[in-house]
Amino acid sequence: MESVSAGAGEAPRRTRGARAQRREAGSNPGVPYIVRNIPTYDILGEESLARIERTADRILAEVGIEFRDDAVALDHWRRAGARIDGVRVTFEPGMLKEIVSSAPRQFTQHARNPARSVEIGGNNVVFSPAYGSPFVMDLDKGRRYGTIEDFRNLVKLAQSSPWLHHSGGTICEPVDVPVNKRHLDMVYSHIKYSDRAFMGSITAEERAEDSIEMARILFGADFVDRNCVILGNVNVNSPLVWDGTMTKSLRAYARANQAAVIVPFILGGAMGPVTNAGAIAQSYAETLAGCALTQLERKGTPVIFGNFLSSMSLRSGSPTFGTPEPAIGSMVVGQLARRLGLPLRCAGNFSNAKRPDAQAMQEGVMSMLSAVHCGANFILHSAGFVDGLLAMSYEKFVIDTDFCGALHSYLAGVVVDDNTLAMDAFLEVGPGSHFLGCDHTMRNYQTAFWDSALSDNEPFEKWFEQGETDMALRANRFWKKTLAEYQAPPLDVAIDEALMDFVARRKNGMPDAWY
Amino acid sequence: MESVSAGAGEAPRRTRGARAQRREAGSNPGVPYIVRNIPTYDILGEESLARIERTADRILAEVGIEFRDDAVALDHWRRAGARIDGVRVTFEPGMLKEIVSSAPRQFTQHARNPARSVEIGGNNVVFSPAYGSPFVMDLDKGRRYGTIEDFRNLVKLAQSSPWLHHSGGTICEPVDVPVNKRHLDMVYSHIKYSDRAFMGSITAEERAEDSIEMARILFGADFVDRNCVILGNVNVNSPLVWDGTMTKSLRAYARANQAAVIVPFILGGAMGPVTNAGAIAQSYAETLAGCALTQLERKGTPVIFGNFLSSMSLRSGSPTFGTPEPAIGSMVVGQLARRLGLPLRCAGNFSNAKRPDAQAMQEGVMSMLSAVHCGANFILHSAGFVDGLLAMSYEKFVIDTDFCGALHSYLAGVVVDDNTLAMDAFLEVGPGSHFLGCDHTMRNYQTAFWDSALSDNEPFEKWFEQGETDMALRANRFWKKTLAEYQAPPLDVAIDEALMDFVARRKNGMPDAWY
Repeated sequence: MESVSAGAGEAPRRTRGARAQRREAGSNPGVPYIVRNIPTYDILGEESLARIERTADRILAEVGIEFRDDAVALDHWRRAGARIDGVRVTFEPGMLKEIVSSAPRQFTQHARNPARSVEIGGNNVVFSPAYGSPFVMDLDKGRRYGTIEDFRNLVKLAQSSPWLHHSGGTICEPVDVPVNKRHLDMVYSHIKYSDRAFMGSITAEERAEDSIEMARILFGADFVDRNCVILGNVNVNSPLVWDGTMTKSLRAYARANQAAVIVPFILGGAMGPVTNAGAIAQSYAETLAGCALTQLERKGTPVIFGNFLSSMSLRSGSPTFGTPEPAIGSMVVGQLARRLGLPLRCAGNFSNAKRPDAQAMQEGVMSMLSAVHCGANFILHSAGFVDGLLAMSYEKFVIDTDFCGALHSYLAGVVVDDNTLAMDAFLEVGPGSHFLGCDHTMRNYQTAFWDSALSDNEPFEKWFEQGETDMALRANRFWKKTLAEYQAPPLDVAIDEALMDFVARRKNGMPDAWY
Repeated sequence: MESVSAGAGEAPRRTRGARAQRREAGSNPGVPYIVRNIPTYDILGEESLARIERTADRILAEVGIEFRDDAVALDHWRRAGARIDGVRVTFEPGMLKEIVSSAPRQFTQHARNPARSVEIGGNNVVFSPAYGSPFVMDLDKGRRYGTIEDFRNLVKLAQSSPWLHHSGGTICEPVDVPVNKRHLDMVYSHIKYSDRAFMGSITAEERAEDSIEMARILFGADFVDRNCVILGNVNVNSPLVWDGTMTKSLRAYARANQAAVIVPFILGGAMGPVTNAGAIAQSYAETLAGCALTQLERKGTPVIFGNFLSSMSLRSGSPTFGTPEPAIGSMVVGQLARRLGLPLRCAGNFSNAKRPDAQAMQEGVMSMLSAVHCGANFILHSAGFVDGLLAMSYEKFVIDTDFCGALHSYLAGVVVDDNTLAMDAFLEVGPGSHFLGCDHTMRNYQTAFWDSALSDNEPFEKWFEQGETDMALRANRFWKKTLAEYQAPPLDVAIDEALMDFVARRKNGMPDAWY
């Protein structure tokens, strides 16, 4: 199917009609993304930051990174002047920084509903659901492998929340669909059940290209060539190895002018040092190399500087999540990304809890707050994770999106002006009285405080009479009600048919593969 | 009983022997207090801060504060040059700042175990249990009024945690003891069952004086006259009223050279404006006046600049806790306190949850992190609160103290030196290998990561086999085990007898009063 072109920065013609934005659940109607009104939390000074950068330079120059099974990537490096020894590539200090300087500091990822396009970079914050769990769980059915039905449900829950900004990618693994066909159903589901921006596959180069091709059907090929409409999240095989599967997918996104998110996955003590400064230097080196490779594939293509720090339990040897060391380490990663001038993905809402309990939110809130404090622009895992990265919980998903609502108010900061200073109220009320009905309160109360949809704020007696619920049970009721009330955003019938046709043609005759 | 004097800054002789510090539960043996290694999170610039200060100046000059039922306080203000109109006092801009400049920026509160004395102010952070709940609850017995047995249990749990630094004050209300005798049993319990610093009563001037007198028996009268050994937490009756009960207790502490903690309690929209900037200006004015009054009572006495911001549910009209607006507002309060040069008490671990569930820790972690980010030096409500301020939960108490452990690692920040940068490890390990057994890991793993005593970090299958516990159940087991293993810190028998004798003499012939 041919697509209609649109000028750069212009809304794609095909989706112009689809502006009806679903807004529900909460006093705030939702915003397409957050423009933060508080500064980032910068914890290190110039000297310490420079030492970390110099260590990364030494890692890149003296140890290097292996680029396996991707001759084109090695060619890129050779032409750029890196030293190649087999698959090991080493870099002169400063070389990669110079290469990534062509990447934009900020870019728009377009949604099919233009009112929901997101700005990635600068002071902007985009919340996206968690990504990649093989399992799903809920209070009724417990834990089981995710299916395409779960996938659709979770896309619908995300679409229904006014506090998320992005539809995400592999919101759970639809394990009932063959691995080599899964991406087609996932991308189709994002387009069909959400009108927000989304992510495509990276598990093989042709799956990345399929994902981008479906975006071309939706937005038009010319528009896609000039604008970012899909993201691909690629992982480094830490320490210091880029696998060909990942670099080929990375290059597929870059070639199409779409943004890769470059993410080392470092469990301290296993894939990197147990000390934060070293793990940060390593991930900086690994990410920088990936970001540079996108620019060698296509100069000027958008890219996101990603990061994932984690820790380990000394008692069990298990990876741990939502712990203090990665949380505070994220602040430093943020500072380094800003010195490079690249949009940042960092941290998210992580927990090792197996239920949506106190542990889930102790760890989840600590790590999610670190993401917003460190200045992350694209927070991939904003909602749903339990059991490390292994399970998506329906209940925790809506608890987390509710918390994303709180973060909208938090990131609005403290506004200081004549209205908020309320001098008129003090003159009106005076000592020993109250502000409940004063003019200032009446003017401001509706927007003053965020109101959680899931927290219980009733007196104890009323809470007791109402069944002594905990937040997990309220969340269980909330997601069921939300799914029951879900309405799909309108999608152009011709586009829908073209997408279904593409998916059918790609699947046709393709033998099922389960890896 | 006469007490033995000690020089200023010297450890009191009576307690020198009692150095055996109980250390348990966790790889870190505990520290007497935290010296933060990350900066405070400053979110407002000079101009906005100055506007808030100017608004506070206008409130103080144009509206004023009522000081009710305390002729001595009014005399102090008259002599200091304030304008008095009945009980309404107004202040020229700059006057109160000048008066509080005599208060110390930092001071030591001595514990009977000198190894547990705390530094309050500067870069130091002291975690103290929650304060003032009439109710207690646990998973076995549900909610009920607190008793002196609960009080002792909670003091023992606090003493047993390596992650708290202070024994607190009214850790729960012992409702089975008459109100006019309660303070004697509470102060005695702190001294008997804990060797940490503690707080005394403020509910009547004579109860404040009894509390201080018991401290004199413990530390010696001369030592107490020269050193801070007890704190009193006094509340403003916001908006803009200081009740005589509070100012008389405040003056009792100040007169004895002991530190009052000055805390307005502002529910936005009720006792103050619904907008953060105005509520902050008001509480700044109220706290500043209280701090100044301590200096008029005794110049140079230590005092803590306190604050309590809260919000309100639009749906129910209930106060809400652990919400985003007070959390971000605390950052501004911290900046203002540092401009004054006074030690800060701000925020703590608050939640409206009725159980130790996801809500409890979502709200609790958000508000507790705001306390450490804003630079609070004394965090009064670090552990235990549920149901707003109304109940102390045994389970949440140990969940919160566990989280205080995480904050020890968090506040240690990211250390950047040759060891943490781990260049030797990168040269040793190289690409595609792992760091599990390398020299750097072996040197650092034992201190690298905080290890929670309550989080589950096992694989799902093992967690399932072990009974599918949630954090609340693990906390239930933990506090019972901790109480069963509790051992009282040694206390000089003569002091113990003198304290018991004082309590008996004060109670003797005193008719029970229940208000």
